[in-house]
Amino acid sequence: MNSLESKAINTIRILSADAVQKANSGHPGTPMGLAPIAHVLWSDIMHYNPKNPDWANRDRFILSCGHACMLQYSILHLTGYDVTMEDIKNFRQLHSKTAGHPEYGLCPGVEVTTGPLGQGFANGVGMAIAQQYLASRYNKPGFSLFDYHIYAICSDGDLMEGVASEAASVAGHLKLGKIVYLYDDNRITIEGNTDLAFSENVPERFKSYGWHVQTVEDGNDIAGIKAAIENAKKAVDQPSLICVRTQIGYGSPNKVNTAAAHGAPLGEDELILVKKNLGFDPEKKFYVPEDVEKFYMEKGGKGQQSEKEWDNLYQSYKQKYPAEAAEYETFSSGKLPEGWDKDLPVFQPDKKGVATRKASGATLNAIADKLPLMIGGSADLAPSTDTFLNGYTSFSDSDHSGRNLHFGIREHGMGAILNGMALTKGIIPYGATFLIFYDYMRPPVRLAAIMKIRPIFVYTHDSIALGEDGTTHQPIEQLAGLRSVPNMTIIRPADANETVHAWRTALNHQGGPVAIILTRQNLPAIDQNLYTKASALEKGAYILSDCEGEPQIILMGTGSEVHLLIEAQEKLKQESILARVVSFPSWELFEKQDKAYREKVLPGQIRKRLAVEAGSPLGWDKYITEEGGMIAISQFGESAPGPQIMKEYGFSVENVIEKAKALLKK
Amino acid sequence: MNSLESKAINTIRILSADAVQKANSGHPGTPMGLAPIAHVLWSDIMHYNPKNPDWANRDRFILSCGHACMLQYSILHLTGYDVTMEDIKNFRQLHSKTAGHPEYGLCPGVEVTTGPLGQGFANGVGMAIAQQYLASRYNKPGFSLFDYHIYAICSDGDLMEGVASEAASVAGHLKLGKIVYLYDDNRITIEGNTDLAFSENVPERFKSYGWHVQTVEDGNDIAGIKAAIENAKKAVDQPSLICVRTQIGYGSPNKVNTAAAHGAPLGEDELILVKKNLGFDPEKKFYVPEDVEKFYMEKGGKGQQSEKEWDNLYQSYKQKYPAEAAEYETFSSGKLPEGWDKDLPVFQPDKKGVATRKASGATLNAIADKLPLMIGGSADLAPSTDTFLNGYTSFSDSDHSGRNLHFGIREHGMGAILNGMALTKGIIPYGATFLIFYDYMRPPVRLAAIMKIRPIFVYTHDSIALGEDGTTHQPIEQLAGLRSVPNMTIIRPADANETVHAWRTALNHQGGPVAIILTRQNLPAIDQNLYTKASALEKGAYILSDCEGEPQIILMGTGSEVHLLIEAQEKLKQESILARVVSFPSWELFEKQDKAYREKVLPGQIRKRLAVEAGSPLGWDKYITEEGGMIAISQFGESAPGPQIMKEYGFSVENVIEKAKALLKK
Repeated sequence: MNSLESKAINTIRILSADAVQKANSGHPGTPMGLAPIAHVLWSDIMHYNPKNPDWANRDRFILSCGHACMLQYSILHLTGYDVTMEDIKNFRQLHSKTAGHPEYGLCPGVEVTTGPLGQGFANGVGMAIAQQYLASRYNKPGFSLFDYHIYAICSDGDLMEGVASEAASVAGHLKLGKIVYLYDDNRITIEGNTDLAFSENVPERFKSYGWHVQTVEDGNDIAGIKAAIENAKKAVDQPSLICVRTQIGYGSPNKVNTAAAHGAPLGEDELILVKKNLGFDPEKKFYVPEDVEKFYMEKGGKGQQSEKEWDNLYQSYKQKYPAEAAEYETFSSGKLPEGWDKDLPVFQPDKKGVATRKASGATLNAIADKLPLMIGGSADLAPSTDTFLNGYTSFSDSDHSGRNLHFGIREHGMGAILNGMALTKGIIPYGATFLIFYDYMRPPVRLAAIMKIRPIFVYTHDSIALGEDGTTHQPIEQLAGLRSVPNMTIIRPADANETVHAWRTALNHQGGPVAIILTRQNLPAIDQNLYTKASALEKGAYILSDCEGEPQIILMGTGSEVHLLIEAQEKLKQESILARVVSFPSWELFEKQDKAYREKVLPGQIRKRLAVEAGSPLGWDKYITEEGGMIAISQFGESAPGPQIMKEYGFSVENVIEKAKALLKK
Repeated sequence: MNSLESKAINTIRILSADAVQKANSGHPGTPMGLAPIAHVLWSDIMHYNPKNPDWANRDRFILSCGHACMLQYSILHLTGYDVTMEDIKNFRQLHSKTAGHPEYGLCPGVEVTTGPLGQGFANGVGMAIAQQYLASRYNKPGFSLFDYHIYAICSDGDLMEGVASEAASVAGHLKLGKIVYLYDDNRITIEGNTDLAFSENVPERFKSYGWHVQTVEDGNDIAGIKAAIENAKKAVDQPSLICVRTQIGYGSPNKVNTAAAHGAPLGEDELILVKKNLGFDPEKKFYVPEDVEKFYMEKGGKGQQSEKEWDNLYQSYKQKYPAEAAEYETFSSGKLPEGWDKDLPVFQPDKKGVATRKASGATLNAIADKLPLMIGGSADLAPSTDTFLNGYTSFSDSDHSGRNLHFGIREHGMGAILNGMALTKGIIPYGATFLIFYDYMRPPVRLAAIMKIRPIFVYTHDSIALGEDGTTHQPIEQLAGLRSVPNMTIIRPADANETVHAWRTALNHQGGPVAIILTRQNLPAIDQNLYTKASALEKGAYILSDCEGEPQIILMGTGSEVHLLIEAQEKLKQESILARVVSFPSWELFEKQDKAYREKVLPGQIRKRLAVEAGSPLGWDKYITEEGGMIAISQFGESAPGPQIMKEYGFSVENVIEKAKALLKK
């Protein structure tokens, strides 16, 4: 290592430690150990343009161990991203872009919000799938438009988390050769040495998944790191893991290789010792030597040239392949092609009806041709979730144009992979499982909501009505759980036609993920000639069936419970009780409507309201008033045929009528 | 295989398929493939007593692939458990004990509720830890009281789930040699052949975790299976995985080795073909040949003798080691020793105060000596969650008496391991992480609630007030999430003394898990001379500080927000506004109080109520009335110093006062 490189690396170390010290909070040790890796990636390996962090063919970098974010902020600052020294000094302060863990959309150059361990690792697998899909669709002879790599730095914690295991197995299976991950093997965790809890053979484990595995014995050996990365890139049909033996807190005489360097500032005194130790002026803070500044700015500056070359390539491509270019530009700008929703299926009135999961499958297949960048799959439940795109192949190691993904029985991995795909402009990913298994994938759903990205989550078998599979498979609190996540939109359609519009709404939706909640069991298809058309679903709640005159009571519900309300309304009418039926597929969409609309659907003076939903009552209070009531579930389910258990738990026309009358009598 | 054994195995196959057919729902193929393994376990390997499924030294059996439960019900019936042929015929029917997935507490002989894949695998690791701990504490020379094994059958799906990866790594690390798992390598999943999504090298993967791995090439080779199990038992310092190449739907001419045999009845016609194929009378249903019945009943009957021998051993033990026996009997009967809570810490009033996580650590350490069967740990956050038992060693491969568990950065695995420990009578397990990481471990928390077992979950860093770690680490909807789970009890104490009583209440609690929610930041210790004593926490909500005369408004809150209410109450008093402060640490405990008590705390006529909690408002409506309001959070957090962000989000005395006045004006 020449002395400039050495100085450059030490600048990253000290800048990171300075920022943590000033914030009086954060993680100095990991940036200090990882500085040589960041140095190699940003000065020798990665293609990136600090002036356009969104350049489509940039290499992706993921800091899966997000707590080490000062490493990333330091190198982003040094290479010329819009991260100023002021930003560095505002590390972890209110409204700063340099948050305590890197946040997508907040800090330029941050590809993905990380922090919860294991997620970044799995997001990268999704990015690699998306890259392969884009390449298969748009690359042409002589036009290697999309050939970027996905680099990540992962910690012990990342590798311990199950989500990373799931994603690693998927990546090995799919032979995602563009993945190059560096494992920060520093042997220190919060509780102490990793041998307290982590003695598995990591290289052998990754080989068993089909990965290309290398080891670099010295985390300061930048030639060795560089050679290993070059080697990894040559392993084009295997994801790569490079285990780098680093030293947490490298440079700190008293804290190197200890847990003390992990999660707290080094302390002013120790920081002075670090600076002395690394040949820096102990008096200076936030100091970047001039030659180091120049060095990294030059490295960063090269990216503008790289992007310009790519732009030229793209312009030629556009001339030669105008249709492909137009398609890519439409999708990558977040739009959908004109008329994509012209031929949505329409379901005729039908008492026996169809399960909304089936209607969903029909819808997906009706629009698949028009949305070629919509790809997705299921966590080994495609025949049950009805999410297979017929006539399209499966995405596999030998077919990167396949639109059907097989995630295996790995819901958590699926969620995080979908996020990585959604972070790739143009790609519209969806993933399906049973609603109960949302519990297995809560962290990535939350992160999608934090990032306001748009994977579509399809959750079927949405209530106790799934029947015999019983307690462990019957969701109770999962709908309430989804609704509790900020920025989430949940849609639980009442029949086949509402399902069609659930998909339409989800695909048009901006600013966060959408979850579509579907039944296992058949539901009557509501007659759109007699009742309000299902396209009203986009308003979140609407008067599906009104009475003549002011209603005495409003019956509201979602999904499979709505048809009970229509039947109850009719029977109540026979007894001269005026009821309005409100179909309420989405709280979040309803809350976006103006007050006048909301007041029209749920007028303040009509205080007798009965909400019916086969799930936890949590949160419904705000819609039912103190004179209202609910038919909901506050206990676990039970194994029995669906119709029986629904009746047992009070989801019957009779019980709706009884409860409605009881409310009116109160 | 002799012909009786062959007939016995085929009886299991056909009985299982018959039950699925009658239920017209379920999973026939896996029981058919696994019948030989069940046969070997129950006829040659396991020690069990059908007449006392709770015998303390029985071998444990876990069907991690719970969907194959007809296998378990069949063998439980045949060996003489209280599972009648009527029960088998009622498979998957309302209120039957033979639910669609095996349920602990519902069906005798079922050790743990399974179904959500990967959980059973990890539960077994917890059972093995518990076994080692009991053995280390109670076994004496000549008295090998606890030497049972933990057997499980795991499917492809179990091995794909991340939770199993986490637990496997823990088991290998701890060298849990009593674990003998059989992997049902049938190469079929719901979407088709496992090679769609699962091509990793399972044996190599498990070797990398430190497991002893064997392969049996033919799932019908009962001698081979038996030999492999015997071998596995000899590997006393390694958990064992035996990969058995089985055939799903074995015996079914048209469905063997296909996904069609997985999740639906075979069909009457195919079932007739199965019976013919296996030499059974195709006309007979639910048929157990007499010699098979006799064979298994004899095998089951041997268990009574085994238990009798153990009982004799235990009686001698009790004479020789009366203190140990008394201790074990107390804990294993679900009791705590007299006076265990006599010397709980008392915190003096203190404005600066102490974080409730610290008060929790002090409490844990104060009672540790008196509760020797309370063991626990953290997912690599012990210094932050303050859950280390000082003066006690760590549980490790060389020290099974250690009371401090190091789960590594594996929250999901931790949760499932705790469940396995909690299923071992006597053991009181706890596990800690940050509240945000409850999201990583929702499935086992839910299963603990379903099973009504009693792990204690300790969740610290419970709000945006954790500060700089930012958005990804700041819980918003997690408290609401915990509250949405039936059978859960959540306690969020307001200060150090409430924390003491949170632990007291949690340890006395019956009928489900308890989650204790703790702060990162310091909270004032409330003066117990001036205000109601913290022991009132056990009622869930109580009048912490009342006004003179009828209150105009009730200020209620939990945890770190309560001290704001006391300050606000004082300042409101200066303006002659009468406010009552209700500390509301636990909704669930409050709901258990009688109506009179609840009405006393929250009188119906006092409708101006302000609830203050640094989390999602979801569910508070039911306590605040339509004239009340909330200070809560409906968006994600932000990285900034805790006090700043709390103020920014409205958690200040000033804002409480302002909101209270606004409510009074309305």
